[in-house]
Amino acid sequence: MKHIGKQTIQFDAPPTILQTASIVGPKEGQGPLAKYFDQCLEDEFWGEKTWEKAESKIIKETVNTVISKSGVPSEEIDYCFAGDLLNQCISSSFGLRELNIPFFGVFGACSTFVESLCLGSILLDGHAAKNVLCATSSHFCSAEKQFRFPLELGNQRPPTSQWTVTGSGAAVLSSSGTGPYITMATPGKIVDMGIKDANNMGAAMAPAALDTLITHFQDTGRKPSYYDLIISGDLGYIGKEILTELSETKGYNIKSNYEDCGVLIFDKENQDTHSGGSGCACIGTTFSGYFFKQLKERKINKILLMATGALTNATTSQQGESIPGIAHAIAIEN
Amino acid sequence: MKHIGKQTIQFDAPPTILQTASIVGPKEGQGPLAKYFDQCLEDEFWGEKTWEKAESKIIKETVNTVISKSGVPSEEIDYCFAGDLLNQCISSSFGLRELNIPFFGVFGACSTFVESLCLGSILLDGHAAKNVLCATSSHFCSAEKQFRFPLELGNQRPPTSQWTVTGSGAAVLSSSGTGPYITMATPGKIVDMGIKDANNMGAAMAPAALDTLITHFQDTGRKPSYYDLIISGDLGYIGKEILTELSETKGYNIKSNYEDCGVLIFDKENQDTHSGGSGCACIGTTFSGYFFKQLKERKINKILLMATGALTNATTSQQGESIPGIAHAIAIEN
Repeated sequence: MKHIGKQTIQFDAPPTILQTASIVGPKEGQGPLAKYFDQCLEDEFWGEKTWEKAESKIIKETVNTVISKSGVPSEEIDYCFAGDLLNQCISSSFGLRELNIPFFGVFGACSTFVESLCLGSILLDGHAAKNVLCATSSHFCSAEKQFRFPLELGNQRPPTSQWTVTGSGAAVLSSSGTGPYITMATPGKIVDMGIKDANNMGAAMAPAALDTLITHFQDTGRKPSYYDLIISGDLGYIGKEILTELSETKGYNIKSNYEDCGVLIFDKENQDTHSGGSGCACIGTTFSGYFFKQLKERKINKILLMATGALTNATTSQQGESIPGIAHAIAIEN
Repeated sequence: MKHIGKQTIQFDAPPTILQTASIVGPKEGQGPLAKYFDQCLEDEFWGEKTWEKAESKIIKETVNTVISKSGVPSEEIDYCFAGDLLNQCISSSFGLRELNIPFFGVFGACSTFVESLCLGSILLDGHAAKNVLCATSSHFCSAEKQFRFPLELGNQRPPTSQWTVTGSGAAVLSSSGTGPYITMATPGKIVDMGIKDANNMGAAMAPAALDTLITHFQDTGRKPSYYDLIISGDLGYIGKEILTELSETKGYNIKSNYEDCGVLIFDKENQDTHSGGSGCACIGTTFSGYFFKQLKERKINKILLMATGALTNATTSQQGESIPGIAHAIAIEN
């Protein structure tokens, strides 16, 4: 691989995304993308006693599903990258503790899925591995409990808030395969523009998304029109509008080919999620369920997949801190 | 690089550890390694209003110190890997948000420092970067508050408990340099032997350390005697004894050349830390402060540096879960 421009990595032998899998919760199963997911759960607990244990089960079963679909025996998967939103990433470590695959824990908040795809691709192109597993999860109930208020309080959610996706997305990457290929990665910087509203994550993350997007175009010489689609993770309705406008001020028009997974995964009219979906699983399931199939069927052939994360916690909000954002992008091409 | 054995990576052009830096708290500054650290703080707050903000300041200043000592302009550092114990790794993201270097968040609990050195080395040997920064931190007060009890309660600590090191360790790795070199990496698997005592992390992590250690020897054909020192992160007195005994049952005698940073960083007789030090900064500061200088001065020339982590949080303990462990190892040689 080689480093191009300021912060982009171009792969010499682009890794193939061999397979993906996705399991989602009941609300996502009533949304517009329901038919693309491997499994839609009937309730948020899935037979477990707590939301945290349910989330661990969701990532565990998603990983089992993707390994099975990939046809790669699990003993031939060299390394696993995983992370999630729960404190100390317990959903990943408890969900995957029986996996018996060397494990790199990663944390990029809702950018974790693409961060893990970046790092997995680097291992594959560097000949450190032949097959790599990437996984992430989030859960509406465990996230609300941890970051905002216990659901039992019945707090009203402001219009700028987003709905954490319950689910998990996972992918098996391989050094050999027929694509879709991860051709480039543009890991992002932390950008903090001073937004302090923990109920407006889209606004907090949009400046980081802008930074990564513009840097990707500058590093590669590509224009927005190079891609069939530019896809962000979970900026939601508000963040999507901000990113579209900010891009235009920088001379890049993304209006015609830009989508956000947080906008796509729920129905705006009927599902009452306010500014759309969020969480690690938002891009994790939407990519693994929906976009990967579009790539495999060659309905789309070139995408820039950019996951955004808010690097905050409940304590920093209480201590009056602003919310740093980050965005990691990869180019996926047939 | 190439993959050897089950899970080890051997670097073709082993990255150099160009420089390290360490800043520690007052208790560490009264310990036996005090003179090796770049700075010993006089109090746990360092002028900040909260322990979390103090921890962010410690990692920030440690990173500024290592960049300055390395002589590499920060704009020539291509990527940064960092993580810590605080929820959502806020010490790293808040501490490093002004750094303006593309950022990979990693989480391996107390194994984070070596996990970041592993991944940094992979990027360097794969030509994705020329210089990489790795950093981690922990803080006794923020960790006790988050994982156990608020210090104000004055709870008694059981004899098996360990004392979270207040401090930060950071390293600049480079694709060119005269060593010490990171020659191999053996990333570890999650191992959970059912230990449930959140006040006995050494016992919870020792089985993971054993797994990584034995795998490293099997993958590489090396014996314990190949290394001048085998160094674990924070198994403490109890975990160190367990690992030594378990290794012997597997046919590997590490009695004569095995040290643990949790045992070294505090004075057993006079500092009342029970089973020794722990936390991301335990191996982070002990390696960056003490062992790196020993390597540079060629007092030691071949070490296996293995950081151990307990992948748990306060919620899982309350939900009756056991504590999964992990250990990542790198070989560092002159």
